[in-house]
Amino acid sequence: MENERYRRGWEMLQGIDAKQIEGLMESLREVAPDFAKYVIEFPFGDIYSRPGLDLQTRELVAVAALTTLGNALPQLRVHIRYALNVGCSREQVLEVIMQTAVYAGFPAALNGLFAAKEVFQQSGN
Amino acid sequence: MENERYRRGWEMLQGIDAKQIEGLMESLREVAPDFAKYVIEFPFGDIYSRPGLDLQTRELVAVAALTTLGNALPQLRVHIRYALNVGCSREQVLEVIMQTAVYAGFPAALNGLFAAKEVFQQSGN
Amino acid sequence: MENERYRRGWEMLQGIDAKQIEGLMESLREVAPDFAKYVIEFPFGDIYSRPGLDLQTRELVAVAALTTLGNALPQLRVHIRYALNVGCSREQVLEVIMQTAVYAGFPAALNGLFAAKEVFQQSGN
Amino acid sequence: MENERYRRGWEMLQGIDAKQIEGLMESLREVAPDFAKYVIEFPFGDIYSRPGLDLQTRELVAVAALTTLGNALPQLRVHIRYALNVGCSREQVLEVIMQTAVYAGFPAALNGLFAAKEVFQQSGN
Amino acid sequence: MENERYRRGWEMLQGIDAKQIEGLMESLREVAPDFAKYVIEFPFGDIYSRPGLDLQTRELVAVAALTTLGNALPQLRVHIRYALNVGCSREQVLEVIMQTAVYAGFPAALNGLFAAKEVFQQSGN
Amino acid sequence: MENERYRRGWEMLQGIDAKQIEGLMESLREVAPDFAKYVIEFPFGDIYSRPGLDLQTRELVAVAALTTLGNALPQLRVHIRYALNVGCSREQVLEVIMQTAVYAGFPAALNGLFAAKEVFQQSGN
Repeated sequence: MENERYRRGWEMLQGIDAKQIEGLMESLREVAPDFAKYVIEFPFGDIYSRPGLDLQTRELVAVAALTTLGNALPQLRVHIRYALNVGCSREQVLEVIMQTAVYAGFPAALNGLFAAKEVFQQSGN
Repeated sequence: MENERYRRGWEMLQGIDAKQIEGLMESLREVAPDFAKYVIEFPFGDIYSRPGLDLQTRELVAVAALTTLGNALPQLRVHIRYALNVGCSREQVLEVIMQTAVYAGFPAALNGLFAAKEVFQQSGN
Repeated sequence: MENERYRRGWEMLQGIDAKQIEGLMESLREVAPDFAKYVIEFPFGDIYSRPGLDLQTRELVAVAALTTLGNALPQLRVHIRYALNVGCSREQVLEVIMQTAVYAGFPAALNGLFAAKEVFQQSGN
Repeated sequence: MENERYRRGWEMLQGIDAKQIEGLMESLREVAPDFAKYVIEFPFGDIYSRPGLDLQTRELVAVAALTTLGNALPQLRVHIRYALNVGCSREQVLEVIMQTAVYAGFPAALNGLFAAKEVFQQSGN
Repeated sequence: MENERYRRGWEMLQGIDAKQIEGLMESLREVAPDFAKYVIEFPFGDIYSRPGLDLQTRELVAVAALTTLGNALPQLRVHIRYALNVGCSREQVLEVIMQTAVYAGFPAALNGLFAAKEVFQQSGN
Repeated sequence: MENERYRRGWEMLQGIDAKQIEGLMESLREVAPDFAKYVIEFPFGDIYSRPGLDLQTRELVAVAALTTLGNALPQLRVHIRYALNVGCSREQVLEVIMQTAVYAGFPAALNGLFAAKEVFQQSGN
């Protein structure tokens, strides 16, 4: 069953971002192999694979939360790319980031918008 | 045009929550009348009235950001109610709050879930 | 195996705090039964049951992190009680909270110290 | 010299708020007497007694920082009262809190404004 | 009237920092042109142009809030430069940053002081 | 006595990290010499030199708090090195960082783990 959570999470992630996930995981495994497992199991195996929210909404929620945190720019860039990969439009991503200015302030939103700009420039989506 | 932003924001809010908004605004106006105006104009007149995200997604984004902040429980309760008012299901609200555990930790998510429980008990939605 | 994580986490928690855990979990289950499961599985079944840190150090780490967050007072009170339950002294708990003033500022530490005072008064430890 | 820092900080605090400080310190001394000493020595004996900023600006800086933190409402209320005590106007306090909406978001500013309202109602300043 | 807010905010910004603002805005307009407008309108057109606080105090409040946030270093650097531009002394800026150590901890203050050092080295103020 | 706090803190730091501390302090002294003194006096002269927690636990507490803050990566790297210097194992440091995922979320823990990886690679501990 433990393996089931990992397998489910890994398939979920493969569906979202087959290209870059393996490199990131490899880098994490070198320092904390169990945590690399947890990162697949809980966020993707448990949470993302739940019914009740479609994947596009999940990625917009991730973008909203990570922009609000303000100190998670690497993860924000990853989830902006995931959002595009699962079919969110650039416009939707930008709208979510702009809306967080209301709750988390203009600096968080500005840093989020510049992160989005970088991701948009790197991706062909 | 300034009045146009206020009018647009106020109508937006009336559509979301006609019952409780006036009391909150009245209480705010007693201490900072201009800020009561800004709260309508920027979040609702400028941001919420933009195309690009439907109102249900906007409220789920608000719930995600406010749960993540962790120190905005009064505003989180308000937006959980708004989310229900604009047609989000209880399930969707709970899914968003549970997902924030990934980014903001279990305490933020737990406080968010107990806030949702309170709002659900008070509302007939 | 999934059940194994839950069982391991639940036994861990029973060893730390047999009295109050069931009530808290019951309250959480009413709104989000799956999350009540996750709260046992990941923090206690996965993390707390790892070798490499003894339980007393784990609870001091929890007190340090929760005091630093500043917006997790209910969880901080719980973990101050857990710290005492697993054999940390009041002095150790207070030292950890005072040290967080360095990293998170005096208000976070003050709120932590007053939380500790409450817990000490309620408990006979 | 250590005593000199305490003496200097205590006199500074007496000048700002002779009435309520002793009760707060007494409550803190019951749980962490050394920390009660540090709270006088570093913030007031070291920082507040430095030249380079007048006391009114120091209190406006405190209000800005504490509103931004969002999880320090008890300390925010104290410093709003201190700001009034050292001669800041209610208008200045409200302007600072409203400005923090730009950096920390509307919820932090709203919670700050309602804290100010409470303090204004309790005080005769 | 909308244009009036923008015009008022833009003139305010021109008075504070004529040299670098256009480049920053241009970069923002490429990804989110409406947000570039909001950044002028709300923070500068609405808030900064209010009476009740002089510009020097507003910039010290910005430095206090941005140092406290901790995750807004690009914006902190900008406002340290603005503070110098509107006539605050280096000493005042450093005093504000050092005072935030009390509320937000030593790491936030240290990162703020090193940001100030950079800005001082780049500017001839 | 003031000098006594500084002397005590400086000796403490020399015991923890004789090699790199002087360079960091020199860089800080150039912009804020008094703050360089405070950084020795309060965190190390007052707090670290208290009985009640051994140095290894103090460094694990520092790692927990700094990982949780999320916006203090330079200080986190320093304290990961200190933790190794005072005899904590790499395993203990990694366990603390992984545990903070529970309270502060996965992004904070991930950034902490990658910071640890860097420090481990640079150090021969």
